[in-house]
Amino acid sequence: MSGNQTTETAADLAAVAALLEIAEELGVSSLLDRAGPFTLDDLAGAGGVPEEGAAGLLEALLASGLVERTGDPQQFLPCADMADRRYESGYLSWALNANRPFVENAPEFLRDPDGAAEKYHRDGRRVAVSSRWMGSMGAYPAAFSAILECRPDRMADLGAGAGALVINVLRKLPTSSGVLLDMSEAACAEATRAAGQAGVEDRLQVVNRRIESLVDDPSPVEGADLIHAGFVMHDVSADPEMFDAVLRSCRAAMKPTGRLIVTDAIPYATDPRERKFSALFTYLHVAFMGVRLLTKEQWTAAFRAAGFTDVTSVDLRFPTGRMFVVTV
Amino acid sequence: MSGNQTTETAADLAAVAALLEIAEELGVSSLLDRAGPFTLDDLAGAGGVPEEGAAGLLEALLASGLVERTGDPQQFLPCADMADRRYESGYLSWALNANRPFVENAPEFLRDPDGAAEKYHRDGRRVAVSSRWMGSMGAYPAAFSAILECRPDRMADLGAGAGALVINVLRKLPTSSGVLLDMSEAACAEATRAAGQAGVEDRLQVVNRRIESLVDDPSPVEGADLIHAGFVMHDVSADPEMFDAVLRSCRAAMKPTGRLIVTDAIPYATDPRERKFSALFTYLHVAFMGVRLLTKEQWTAAFRAAGFTDVTSVDLRFPTGRMFVVTV
Repeated sequence: MSGNQTTETAADLAAVAALLEIAEELGVSSLLDRAGPFTLDDLAGAGGVPEEGAAGLLEALLASGLVERTGDPQQFLPCADMADRRYESGYLSWALNANRPFVENAPEFLRDPDGAAEKYHRDGRRVAVSSRWMGSMGAYPAAFSAILECRPDRMADLGAGAGALVINVLRKLPTSSGVLLDMSEAACAEATRAAGQAGVEDRLQVVNRRIESLVDDPSPVEGADLIHAGFVMHDVSADPEMFDAVLRSCRAAMKPTGRLIVTDAIPYATDPRERKFSALFTYLHVAFMGVRLLTKEQWTAAFRAAGFTDVTSVDLRFPTGRMFVVTV
Repeated sequence: MSGNQTTETAADLAAVAALLEIAEELGVSSLLDRAGPFTLDDLAGAGGVPEEGAAGLLEALLASGLVERTGDPQQFLPCADMADRRYESGYLSWALNANRPFVENAPEFLRDPDGAAEKYHRDGRRVAVSSRWMGSMGAYPAAFSAILECRPDRMADLGAGAGALVINVLRKLPTSSGVLLDMSEAACAEATRAAGQAGVEDRLQVVNRRIESLVDDPSPVEGADLIHAGFVMHDVSADPEMFDAVLRSCRAAMKPTGRLIVTDAIPYATDPRERKFSALFTYLHVAFMGVRLLTKEQWTAAFRAAGFTDVTSVDLRFPTGRMFVVTV
């Protein structure tokens, strides 16, 4: 006797996210993201686990449909829509894994925000990984094509993390150069490694610094005709004076024909498509991270006050995300 | 300029689950589950947090649509479809919160299953809460109506946790009595409290014991005309001999007109509706908890081997879940 036919979307998404997180912890995500097949040996080798352990995981991945059999019994292929699965999993992983220290210590944060903020910290790797998964379809494609449309000779990427975006731009524009700025030493090391692997290391300068340092020394952005800042400016905008000073330094240092492209989140977006995730994103930033998110009007006003002229805003697929394309 | 209209289901589900988890950590879930309105004072009081902290959470809940304004500016109402939101959140919370120790220590589990299993344990409260949320629509309604259909004079609920099911059955059947068996002292204490609140305490016997103890002393199930075991038998069935002995004891002790109702999970269900969640559920049980899940055929054979006659199986809404209705 068979009962229910309804798709259980929440169960599907939860299961896929947990399986992809397990794969990520094992270090085998790259096998799942490529179009080519892999073997059980590849899986055991990449994960550094015994064949028995790898076989159990492979069985689960096959049963879930995330991995498929090929004609060859030794070869296994990631599902064709893995990119969608990873994108969706990003939201679950960000909300429930990266932000776990906030969620599970919520009572302390609500009773003593400052004390709790000193005590509990998110794991940078988990934030970076889940943000990358969400960004893969939520923000990256829009920023990437907006940048390519400008065909910059020199691009600066502020708070660029491991540099996937600027490296991919340099690969597309073989005569352009770039600079990557990030406060994390680990991210900068990873970016240097990735630039080498992509063969763009002689066209990419990696600078291990905070964005705020551009006020005293704008040399990294000097002569750039495109400056990009992806979901990092809200950390600077908490201090309106500092934010204004950073924007002014960028504007003064970059080419007069340049563009500034900023992606970021607005607070408490009301659109039905966005309101749920926007509510969580805003609440966690305001009440747990002490971050001030700016409205579209506040962003526009801040760019104008720093001397920028034309400001265009585009809704990102990432709920509550906006892309501002700003003219010097 | 507006871009995307697609619903971001994963983002919605992730945000709702995280907000409901925050509310659960604060102890304010009961305010959100009732049909009546609440005030900011109610929220602050139930959460034991200052008004400012409660106001921030309320703002987020209103922005997300989980809570709505009423005509009265002091009164707030949980959304009409809160039960659906909580049910969906159960899957995310179970997969990514309750099972977090497994997910984040997956490499250790795959390298040294026994060592890791000794070291890392799930939090019983998180397992119970997320299971209750999933079960609210995934298994509870089917079990509840199957039990009521039998109109038992005496019902035994094995591994009943805090006893919501048996207590609700006793409320519906005012001349019936029941017994609840659970290995957790905390769950038994909670069940006693809940039975008192529901006014059924003189008709419900609470027994703090493992299911396995029924082999040596079947007195708790003596004379029952209905025995229910919800998603607990897979812990017993790991040992086929013990499982058989438990089933035989139940059969011998209960009324010859009785019914046994067992809900449980089958391994690696292949139906497209179930396969993803079934893959995670099976994999976590097999590789991280050392649990042997039985196929529908194995369940049926086990009931028959212990002397039960007719066995009917129903698919639950909970993916990979089955309900067996078994005749003495």
